Order: sequence, then C-alpha cells, then structure tokens
Amino acid sequence: MGKEELFGLRIDEPSADVYKKAKQHFDELAKPIDGFGMFEDMICRIAAIQGSDRPCIDKKALIIMIADTKVVNEGISQTDPSVTLQVARLMGKNESTVGAMTRGYDVDVIPVDVGIDSDIKISGIIDKKIAKGAGNIATEPAMTAEQCLEAIEAGIDMVRYCRERGYDIISTGEMGIGNTTTATTLLCALTGAEPAEVTGRGAGLSAEGLRRKTDVIKRTLNLHKLNNTHKITPTKHYVYNAVTKVGGLDIAALSGVYIGAALYHIPVVIDGMISAVAALAAECMVGGSRAYMIASHTGREKGCRIALERLGLKAVLSADMALGEGTGAVMIFPILDMVMSVYDDGTRFDDTPIDRYERFDK
Amino acid sequence: MGKEELFGLRIDEPSADVYKKAKQHFDELAKPIDGFGMFEDMICRIAAIQGSDRPCIDKKALIIMIADTKVVNEGISQTDPSVTLQVARLMGKNESTVGAMTRGYDVDVIPVDVGIDSDIKISGIIDKKIAKGAGNIATEPAMTAEQCLEAIEAGIDMVRYCRERGYDIISTGEMGIGNTTTATTLLCALTGAEPAEVTGRGAGLSAEGLRRKTDVIKRTLNLHKLNNTHKITPTKHYVYNAVTKVGGLDIAALSGVYIGAALYHIPVVIDGMISAVAALAAECMVGGSRAYMIASHTGREKGCRIALERLGLKAVLSADMALGEGTGAVMIFPILDMVMSVYDDGTRFDDTPIDRYERFDK
Repeated sequence: MGKEELFGLRIDEPSADVYKKAKQHFDELAKPIDGFGMFEDMICRIAAIQGSDRPCIDKKALIIMIADTKVVNEGISQTDPSVTLQVARLMGKNESTVGAMTRGYDVDVIPVDVGIDSDIKISGIIDKKIAKGAGNIATEPAMTAEQCLEAIEAGIDMVRYCRERGYDIISTGEMGIGNTTTATTLLCALTGAEPAEVTGRGAGLSAEGLRRKTDVIKRTLNLHKLNNTHKITPTKHYVYNAVTKVGGLDIAALSGVYIGAALYHIPVVIDGMISAVAALAAECMVGGSRAYMIASHTGREKGCRIALERLGLKAVLSADMALGEGTGAVMIFPILDMVMSVYDDGTRFDDTPIDRYERFDK
Repeated sequence: MGKEELFGLRIDEPSADVYKKAKQHFDELAKPIDGFGMFEDMICRIAAIQGSDRPCIDKKALIIMIADTKVVNEGISQTDPSVTLQVARLMGKNESTVGAMTRGYDVDVIPVDVGIDSDIKISGIIDKKIAKGAGNIATEPAMTAEQCLEAIEAGIDMVRYCRERGYDIISTGEMGIGNTTTATTLLCALTGAEPAEVTGRGAGLSAEGLRRKTDVIKRTLNLHKLNNTHKITPTKHYVYNAVTKVGGLDIAALSGVYIGAALYHIPVVIDGMISAVAALAAECMVGGSRAYMIASHTGREKGCRIALERLGLKAVLSADMALGEGTGAVMIFPILDMVMSVYDDGTRFDDTPIDRYERFDK
C-alpha cells in the first residue's frame, strides 16, 4: 500500500437501519427508556458496525502495540528504556499487569512487537518489528515515511488476523517507555494544544522532570514545524507527516488498528491517552474510522479527553488511571457483557402486564 | 432500637494501617505507581474496612429495597404505580433488568419488600414490609417516626443477614415508582439544593411532567418546613425528621443498609441518585458511615453528584444511566475483580529485573 492508497481508503458507514432496530429492541425491554444510557448507544453502535441487530461480543481480543522511542535520551521518563523489553517479556508469558487483570476473564491478549529496541525474539509476542525503536523526535524524525506506512499496515494486518480468528470486538493498548511524550507531541501537532497545558507525568515524574518533558515537547514541535498555532483542521498529509516526525512506531501501528477495524467492520475500544491520540490520527488520515471506535476511560493524562472530544467520543470511565497496556479498555468489556445479557435475555414488555414507557424529547 | 440509640451508634474507623499496607503492596507490583488510580484507592479502602491486607470480594450481594410512595397521586411519574409490584415479581424470579444483567456473573440479588402497596406475598422476595407504601409527601408525612426506625432497622438487619452468609461486599439498589421524587425532595431538604436545579425526569417525563414534579417538590418542602434555605449542615434530628416527612420506606431502609455496613465492617457500593441520597442521610444520622461506602456511577439525575460530593466520594462511571435496581453499582464489581486479580497475582518488581518506580509529590 502506498500513501495515496492509504488516503484513498473508503470507510463504510455502519448501518443506521440496524442501529435503529437495536434501539427499538432495547425499547421493548421492560425497563425505562434509555435506562442504560451510553451503554445502550454502545451496543446499538456495535450492532450497526456488525450489521446485525443480534450483535455479538463473545470473542474479545486486546491488541497491544509495543515499541521504544529514543526520545527517552532526553530524560523524559522515570525508568530505564530497557523496561519496555522487560514488560514485553512478561506480556509474552501473560504475566504483565493486563495479563494478571484478565486472568479470570475471557479476553485474549495479543502483544505485538513493532519496535522494541532489541534483537531478541520474545516468546509469546507477535513479531512485526519495523525498527529497533523510533528516533529521538527532539533531534530527528521518529521514522521514515516508509516505516510509518509499514507500521500502519502492521496494525491493519493485526485486525485481519483477528478477523480471521473470529474475534467480535477488539480493544487496544500499548507499551513503550517514553510514549506519553511522543503521543502528547503528536496531539499538540494535530490540535494546536499547548504543551504546558497537556503534558502530564506519564508513569511518574518529579516537577523538574515534568518541566523537562514539557520543554522537550515544545522544542520538538518547533524543530519539525508542527506547532499548528492557528489550530487548523489538519490535512491528511500534515497528519501523516506529523506521525512520521513526532509519533512512535506503537502509535503509528495503533492508528493502523483503528483503520483496520473500520475496514473489517469490527468495533474497537480505545484505551487511554496514547491510544486516543493514535485514534485521532487514524480518523484524520482515513475519515470515517471513528464510527468504529468506542471510548472507554480518561485517565490522568489530560490529552485523552482532548483527543476523544475531537473524535466526538465520550468515555464512560474516569478513574485517574495511568497504566497503559489496554488496562482501561478491557474494563468496559464485562460491563458491555452485562448490558448485552439484558439485550439478549431481558424480559420484554410483551411478556409482562407492564405498560411500555413513552419516549419524550429532552 | 430507639432514635437516641440510633444517634448514639459509634462507627469504627477503617484501619489506616491496613490501608497503608495495601498501598505498599500495590507499590511492589511491577506497574506505574498509582497506575489503577481510583480503583487502587477502592481496594485499599476495602482492605482497611475488612481489616486485612489480603482483602476479599469473592462473595457479592446486591440488596434491593422495594417500596411504593403515594406521591405518585400527584402525577410525577410516567407509569402506573402498580409497576412496582410487577417489577418486584420479576425480581423474585430474577427476571428483572438487574437479574438478566448479572446472569453470567457471580452476584446474588436479594430483593426486599419494605413497602410495596399490596398484600400479596411475592415469591423470591424477602418480606420486611413496614407499610403498604409511604404517604403522599405533598400532603402528609411519608411515614411515622416509628416506621422510619423500623425501615432503618430492616436495612441493618439485611446487612446482618449478609454478614451471616459470608458476603464480602454488598451493593445497593432500589425499586419503587415515584422514588426519584421522594429522593430529590430529601436531597433538597438535606443540602438546600434548589428543586428547579436538581429535579430530573426519573424514568421519563415530558416537559410538562417535569414542571409538575418540580412544583410538587417545592410545595412539599414548604409544607414540611424543610427548605434549608441557609444551607445549614443538618443535625441528626433534622435529617431523621426529613426522612420521616419526605423520604420513602425504600430510602429509609437503604440508609439502614449503609449504617449496617458500617456497623458490620462490610464495604457497600452506592448505586445512583436515590441510593446516594439515602447514603447521605445515613452519614448525617450516624457519622462515620461514609468510610464504608464506595461510589460507583453518576447517572442522568443531577442529584447523584451533589449527594456524593457531600459524602466526599467520587464516582468512577458516568454513563447517563437511569434505571435503578442497582444496575450501576454492580457494574463496578467485575472491574474491582480485575484489579483484585492484579493485587493477588500481579508480578512484583522483586520477581523481575525492573527497577521500582519512585513516588513523586504532585
């Protein structure tokens, strides 16, 4: 796939008819109209995406994109960059945090190496390595234009992989020391947000560390001429260039996952800030992708809310999390299961003496 | 128990030492410090409540307090008051909405009749009926002072019932046509909030219906002299009187559940607005109860957020729900299970080559 081919991708709109049918089905259940609020909308959207008013979310995957970035050389993270490899090894054994979290729950964790700074093949990790880490965005481009496309294709490939294995819904996560710096820089480039306002402490930074990180982001935006001071709606070319210059291989690959989800008609749950920025980049490059995205949570990083707002999405969870790995995204799966259980097996007004509720305009 | 005995109850503070130990345990896990945000705090609080840094939330209950209120005669609800009985019957067969919702999940739904307007004994429902519905608060007191105490004791009894059966954590829910009107009135009485600002559409009302409901609440506050215009922190006697005059049997019984949870050292999850107002009343009558409460969600009713703020609690979910039955409260159970799974089985820094993260002040 070339860049122009990427930009030329056409995304189908999820079926408005099926959405309406699913909503009607909810309204026939013996409960107040819109009682499940945003969760009803999510289930109806999933139905519309799957093209069936009998939606199914039984088989779930979590795709985790793992990559290093050499912006860690600027001292913007608390930990040693080797932690990316260490955590990836744990993921390969399903012993990372999200692995422990989902041990009693039916979601398959699929970690993918798109750019760990190591030659080691890690058991249990899918190898889609594009480079041994992205460049130090404070001094050089993150990657070449070709690598960016490769990373996006790796993301699309992973969705096809899931499609072939019958997954009904996927969620996204990432791991890579330094990637709140790249994601925040990209967010500023796309939206014109001020680094001083949106830069957060990632996995933990001192006040001095936070100042340094903010400064690195400012310098990086200047270096690559990506300030977007006038907050102009970015063109596809501008966004692609921004991902190439200040993104990361994890972020580019995640963008590919969102694009792939739209291409293959699979609902995809966004995790926190990094995932949300990648989702925004995907929508900017391939318009219409957002119709396949479901927001889950906003964590401690302020940028998450900004990216979701731009996407016209709203998170249901807000719990000050800062963990990554898709930990926030998988949290909404069991809730969706609960609401689906009502959708599938809830008592209908027709089966009770209860009168149907009437819908009033707000 | 007399009223003075109720007011004299002393609540133990959950163990600050155990909280600290649980937090230390989280900090030893190979993940960013405070990575699970508010969920870490919840688990640490549960540990402190249970008095053990090996907290357990395996056995879960949902206590649903069901009662009618004759304020429905004022035309403040969309549906016929007989719906309370109909839904209670479904609950007895575990076929109500929350029953369908939790079908694939391990939580025991325990519905309790404290005031359904019917003589029928409903199979599957615990009978603690105090009266056949509370009075029409717009024209008379909701209940007598004795009935209020009986309802509170019924709530405490239900927690003892759960304690005896080994439940580790309980959640709360309610059912009763008209109970957003009573709960909103009580909230205004306790906090001095303006009816015009906090009255919502409950399970669905037209603009005209909403005006009528707001007017009923205003009139009721005037009738019982419970305007609290100066927003004074209410005394125990004032709150007890307010519950008696403008509450409902479900609300009074729910207050008892929160008080019981504090007495028996069981963590208790608050559902939406009605549950939150009952929780606020409990804290006002028996100070310290709030240390045993966990907030879950804020729904469409604005009053929920106000009540939780007064309690110093913050919800993690916000999804515009308006259903009742404890549907929002049970949604956080599987999330807590996931975080507990990491607490119990997560990889520790000691078992990896990864350096521990350092905690910085914000």
